Amino acid sequence: MFSLCVSDHIMIAHSFADPFFGPAQRLHGATYGVELTVRSATLGPHHVVMDIGAMRDILRRVLASLDYTNLDEHAAFPGRTSTSERLAEFLAKSIARELGKVPLDGAPPAPATLCVLLRESPVAWASYELPLSDVAGA
Amino acid sequence: MFSLCVSDHIMIAHSFADPFFGPAQRLHGATYGVELTVRSATLGPHHVVMDIGAMRDILRRVLASLDYTNLDEHAAFPGRTSTSERLAEFLAKSIARELGKVPLDGAPPAPATLCVLLRESPVAWASYELPLSDVAGA
Amino acid sequence: MFSLCVSDHIMIAHSFADPFFGPAQRLHGATYGVELTVRSATLGPHHVVMDIGAMRDILRRVLASLDYTNLDEHAAFPGRTSTSERLAEFLAKSIARELGKVPLDGAPPAPATLCVLLRESPVAWASYELPLSDVAGA
Amino acid sequence: MFSLCVSDHIMIAHSFADPFFGPAQRLHGATYGVELTVRSATLGPHHVVMDIGAMRDILRRVLASLDYTNLDEHAAFPGRTSTSERLAEFLAKSIARELGKVPLDGAPPAPATLCVLLRESPVAWASYELPLSDVAGA
Amino acid sequence: MFSLCVSDHIMIAHSFADPFFGPAQRLHGATYGVELTVRSATLGPHHVVMDIGAMRDILRRVLASLDYTNLDEHAAFPGRTSTSERLAEFLAKSIARELGKVPLDGAPPAPATLCVLLRESPVAWASYELPLSDVAGA
Amino acid sequence: MFSLCVSDHIMIAHSFADPFFGPAQRLHGATYGVELTVRSATLGPHHVVMDIGAMRDILRRVLASLDYTNLDEHAAFPGRTSTSERLAEFLAKSIARELGKVPLDGAPPAPATLCVLLRESPVAWASYELPLSDVAGA
Repeated sequence: MFSLCVSDHIMIAHSFADPFFGPAQRLHGATYGVELTVRSATLGPHHVVMDIGAMRDILRRVLASLDYTNLDEHAAFPGRTSTSERLAEFLAKSIARELGKVPLDGAPPAPATLCVLLRESPVAWASYELPLSDVAGA
Repeated sequence: MFSLCVSDHIMIAHSFADPFFGPAQRLHGATYGVELTVRSATLGPHHVVMDIGAMRDILRRVLASLDYTNLDEHAAFPGRTSTSERLAEFLAKSIARELGKVPLDGAPPAPATLCVLLRESPVAWASYELPLSDVAGA
Repeated sequence: MFSLCVSDHIMIAHSFADPFFGPAQRLHGATYGVELTVRSATLGPHHVVMDIGAMRDILRRVLASLDYTNLDEHAAFPGRTSTSERLAEFLAKSIARELGKVPLDGAPPAPATLCVLLRESPVAWASYELPLSDVAGA
Repeated sequence: MFSLCVSDHIMIAHSFADPFFGPAQRLHGATYGVELTVRSATLGPHHVVMDIGAMRDILRRVLASLDYTNLDEHAAFPGRTSTSERLAEFLAKSIARELGKVPLDGAPPAPATLCVLLRESPVAWASYELPLSDVAGA
Repeated sequence: MFSLCVSDHIMIAHSFADPFFGPAQRLHGATYGVELTVRSATLGPHHVVMDIGAMRDILRRVLASLDYTNLDEHAAFPGRTSTSERLAEFLAKSIARELGKVPLDGAPPAPATLCVLLRESPVAWASYELPLSDVAGA
Repeated sequence: MFSLCVSDHIMIAHSFADPFFGPAQRLHGATYGVELTVRSATLGPHHVVMDIGAMRDILRRVLASLDYTNLDEHAAFPGRTSTSERLAEFLAKSIARELGKVPLDGAPPAPATLCVLLRESPVAWASYELPLSDVAGA
């Protein structure tokens, strides 16, 4: 099994409506270190899991839509629910859609999986992993 | 699959009775960077793998029983056998028991797994992973 | 010359009024990794730069007043001017005042300096350093 | 499931013949941070995944054959194909052969897996994982 | 005293002619993590050491001239002398010239210093620091 | 000003006699990440601050005398006073003596300084810096 990972980061504001979150109900923010990992059992014709340039561009493009914003106003997180877990899931699904558009010779050979890991502080991270089996051939 | 990880650390003394360990038979010590990861396929009602506050408190409480101690005197490691692997296993099992007491809305949805990873130096770590499927409902 | 450093972190929201900051004029946020360093030429009676427990408590206490808040509403940054540099300066001056209250045997021997370094992302940090010579004897 | 990881690094030159790689077709180089992880379900007689000293020696010995070299001249990467993925695969297979020679009491109990992860820059890594089930008994 | 730091990286090949360098006489390479720090006693009109966007652009532009190249062919290192120290010095002087062209409201207030630190492996780095006092007013 | 840094680590046990240290009066231990930095205004004949191979060997040799030991039994720390500050001072002075024996073409050009920084946990470090001006010519 091969894996390839690239990283980037975003700086966002958010808050939580749910009293479960205590002080994090207040408007605050985070620098999220974002690690995107793609795994596949075999390599493509260029001896790579996928085109790392395309991978970086997709990660940046998907992140750019959130960078320097207030997630409380984002449609993907209704009712102020932008937990790190939900944010990782949103990013992973958005990236999976973009990966489906990569030219076949630079896309991960099926079956593949994708994982988005978010480092929210020096002492906490969350991630979401999903199969990409339906992406490379999309 | 979702994951949530928090980290902490402990400073302990120990030694090994087994000649297999060479110079580590002498009394020495370690700062262990400790990473606790919980994985679950779905999120609970608060859009999280589990209550991160409870997760941190459990990690700290379990670590506190070992912090600033000599593991050679600890009942969990008879015959001076506190390898990083055995320590990770001990911590993981202790934490699993505590996770079973977390109120259901803040506990990881079953089935879940728990992993304790111990960084013993800049160039070495060990970990132990176990299923938590019987914990959330305990 | 001796140095002692402890670290912690905060999660805040903020924005900048000045058009100079481009997209950072929008409400966003940051996880700031915070490193507090105290330097002194000699050690105190306990063979340390200062009481590391007091140092950690002071850092946490000063950070707690900002953690999980929106810096745009904080009196120390009028006109939405909470750049990393100004935040480091504010924290350093606040911490210097608190260090002046540490019992003499746990305070840094004069002359001493204090530095607050803020890691705002994996690729950027800012810091502010000031002399503490008038603190230990305050 | 237990894991044990040790790390080391190498400094190599290489280039890629395939136009797919853009500017990386030019002769350049990399410091690869190398992490070798072995996983096994149980521990051996010494309460460890495997003899960490042997593990480090094997990693260093296998890396030494590449350290301070130009991978373009290495037989394992014909046609200048030393992508991080292919390098990880080459290292993993070379290490697997060496692990098969470790005395049984210091070898990972079967079934086991081995993973080689290569950090090529602060923002990218690649890895290759293979089962070792046929190694411990070799 | 204020400091502001941004980081980036390059991947280069090089070798050393001097027998002093042992195995590093062979063609090899490095990923250099590059940290650019600017220090000034005061802040400019925008409450920053300098325009961080300009700082990043200058660092990237200066690095781009070396990225994915063989330093043995670079005029700045005659006789294959591209030690980390000489590379840091070359980068610092190149960046200093570029900093002199930054519009005054985004430039570091004089007197200022600049430091380039190069991380060549997980266990070694080198740096070069020079005064910028003649740059801001250039 | 040039700097060159290499790092290594040790694993030791220790305790403190002074009640000032609270729980750290108990026998515990630490993994110390050790960073040795040498600074000089100019470079030697080989375009380096000093021979990095000699620097690494000296650091390892000095650390080896403490690695896998109990510092409570070490003559350098009478009355169980091996604080990180005192340990950094002891290492720096020991290393300074060894640096004085390095052949002149590989020694740091005078005037130079040496700094030993000890990372004792993910959230704390201490360091000691001393001038080496009398070492290179010793």
